[in-house]
Amino acid sequence: MSGTVVMKFGGTSVADAERLRRAATRIVAKREAGNRVVAVLSARGKTTDFLIAEAQEISPNPDPREMDMLLSTGERQSCALCAMAINDLGHRAISLTGSQAGIVTDTSHTKARILDVRADRIRQGLDEDAIVLVAGFQGVSTAKDVTTLGRGGSDTTAVALAAAIGADICEIYTDVAGVFSADPRIVPEARKLPVVSFEEMLEMSASGAGVLQLRSVEYARNHGVRIHCRSSFSDEPGTVVVGEEETVEQPLITAVTHSTEEARVTIKGVPDTPGIAGRIATALAVANVNIDMIIQNEPVSEGALADMSFTVPRSDLTDARAALAPLASELGLEIQTDEAMGKVSVIGAGMKSHPGVAAKVFTTLGAEGVNIEMISTSPIKISCVISGEAVPGAVRALHAAFALSGEGTIRAERPFGEFV
Amino acid sequence: MSGTVVMKFGGTSVADAERLRRAATRIVAKREAGNRVVAVLSARGKTTDFLIAEAQEISPNPDPREMDMLLSTGERQSCALCAMAINDLGHRAISLTGSQAGIVTDTSHTKARILDVRADRIRQGLDEDAIVLVAGFQGVSTAKDVTTLGRGGSDTTAVALAAAIGADICEIYTDVAGVFSADPRIVPEARKLPVVSFEEMLEMSASGAGVLQLRSVEYARNHGVRIHCRSSFSDEPGTVVVGEEETVEQPLITAVTHSTEEARVTIKGVPDTPGIAGRIATALAVANVNIDMIIQNEPVSEGALADMSFTVPRSDLTDARAALAPLASELGLEIQTDEAMGKVSVIGAGMKSHPGVAAKVFTTLGAEGVNIEMISTSPIKISCVISGEAVPGAVRALHAAFALSGEGTIRAERPFGEFV
Repeated sequence: MSGTVVMKFGGTSVADAERLRRAATRIVAKREAGNRVVAVLSARGKTTDFLIAEAQEISPNPDPREMDMLLSTGERQSCALCAMAINDLGHRAISLTGSQAGIVTDTSHTKARILDVRADRIRQGLDEDAIVLVAGFQGVSTAKDVTTLGRGGSDTTAVALAAAIGADICEIYTDVAGVFSADPRIVPEARKLPVVSFEEMLEMSASGAGVLQLRSVEYARNHGVRIHCRSSFSDEPGTVVVGEEETVEQPLITAVTHSTEEARVTIKGVPDTPGIAGRIATALAVANVNIDMIIQNEPVSEGALADMSFTVPRSDLTDARAALAPLASELGLEIQTDEAMGKVSVIGAGMKSHPGVAAKVFTTLGAEGVNIEMISTSPIKISCVISGEAVPGAVRALHAAFALSGEGTIRAERPFGEFV
Repeated sequence: MSGTVVMKFGGTSVADAERLRRAATRIVAKREAGNRVVAVLSARGKTTDFLIAEAQEISPNPDPREMDMLLSTGERQSCALCAMAINDLGHRAISLTGSQAGIVTDTSHTKARILDVRADRIRQGLDEDAIVLVAGFQGVSTAKDVTTLGRGGSDTTAVALAAAIGADICEIYTDVAGVFSADPRIVPEARKLPVVSFEEMLEMSASGAGVLQLRSVEYARNHGVRIHCRSSFSDEPGTVVVGEEETVEQPLITAVTHSTEEARVTIKGVPDTPGIAGRIATALAVANVNIDMIIQNEPVSEGALADMSFTVPRSDLTDARAALAPLASELGLEIQTDEAMGKVSVIGAGMKSHPGVAAKVFTTLGAEGVNIEMISTSPIKISCVISGEAVPGAVRALHAAFALSGEGTIRAERPFGEFV
């Protein structure tokens, strides 16, 4: 069977001449199997980092519009080089910039959002039997300026193009083999998941599993794009991300994810006055600090002082401290921080109809002697903030408790070959 | 006084952070003097060579369309970085790609010609008080593909933009101080020429003086764009290139130019049959070999064999030999080559009305003991092919014979300051 396929290759998959030729060979093989092929490429290896360093050498705070003009060149170079390699393999390939590919974005430089995909030129290339290569991570704004979509934006480019041209599948090639039931470096018996739902993938992306960029999964869910995450170094099938209605069976728990990059901020002595929490949250938002979980202790009596705790990515902690300093001195707040926090999460679409999961998570962690500092839940996820050093043991205990490596939880696999 | 100025900076003028900041400072100074400023930048230092090496690592014969997509990124990076530097100096700058700047070309990838300049976006930027930076060397084809104008094409970009926006002057900043009456490395007393005519500059560009790209001078002449060649490392005025009608006085000889990069090809035993010379020239043209001078010895009797000699740039000699090999074996021709040839030329608009110049050139070279191998002339130029090792002495002798360093030949200088 044949169809239309979007293939996305990350920076490590095109980092040197040999890898770039290997990507070209995979693209050609997909074409020779009878598919119409669009490939989205990232900048080669360290190119983006190099360009950022060049900018920082010139300006301490580079203009965002110009940063986009600068950074967008890396993906264009990858695409031009890959087109050369494909042409040498006897197929016709054309490279397109994000603008030429019709990726129209808003004007938020360095973090633009896609507004529209006018894929006429891609369709025309495919109709002329060409393989179309599109520079990832970029578009053209409604003001006709070059924009970029933020780090990892090439995933979103690929998904958006797949939606626009009605591709049968969007294949994301990375240096991992797919999505696992837990990080195999911590849980050697972790299982590669043949299928996960968008909702599960969103929770996993948000809670530490870095395979796919969160926004690309949202875009895929909203536009019904089937994603296949797979290794660029092997032909093994990876993990297909599909709508929940397509999953054959919903296991209670699909995966355990974790992060050891959390920090906790505790603000002591918060006046029990309306508006204070809002001022704290606003100060952090202005500083672009992402707050994850928040807990506020009720004051014991009216007019007493409360404590407020929240977690942030550890890399945001310095910014968070700076953002809170003026409020702290104004209101006499005491700020405490703990940099060595971690988080474990269990995720599963089947959790919705099984209320006992939380109890099992807490019991399992308790039996391991792990102290739970904060908890947050969604219909398909339970996350616990714990100390960073307790994370590996907690992940292993939860993975075992929910029997995630066992055959009992395996879903009916979809036949991967048929899509492409 | 103020006006509209196009400034062009070559790759060495933006090669590192310090030089790029210096270019930004010059651009800002021009703006602060009250001018509307458009600046055209080349790729930084060795960027283009690096990109070419990347392409050659991927493909022995890279697709020209993709080569253009690849190479055009270098100038975009320069412009983005320079815009950041200018913004830090408190002025607003925007960078534009060749496409955004409205440089429309034909579809001859890697050597495209400019068909039209739709400078609306540049005008809009200037009207909004911005400094507009344009990526040199590139445009967008009528097929909406990225094109490049060939090596040195940034000069042509600058001149074309100056014509399109009606700039008062197009300033070309390079690492030399201007156009000299001879190469100062050979003739230390050579004089910087304050003014030369387009016609003289064309002959000089074609005969070895590498200050300006030939095509940019043609474009400037055809569109009446005044060019000012000057040093990016000094505030001294350089050389202004203007229409002949603007030159106050026409000295007999303006400059002596030379080249030591010539090779001679002699074809012996050419049958005196119509069409043979045409086949030879066609074979060389197909191989993209530039023929300079041609001499054919008349055969002594009808049906006898003739000799044909021509000069080519030494770098084209291998291609020339390869192109002639099939003809040589078909027709039994003998090919001789001499790689160590040079050329000296005297150039001057006043020559037109003074027929004695050729005689003086030949006499001067004869007195130096220099053997003249081939001669070609135009109304304002006499070129002699001589042995490569005789070139420095010949240049010095001609420079002295025509008294080019003497005050007697100085023209009335134009007041440079007034233009900008």
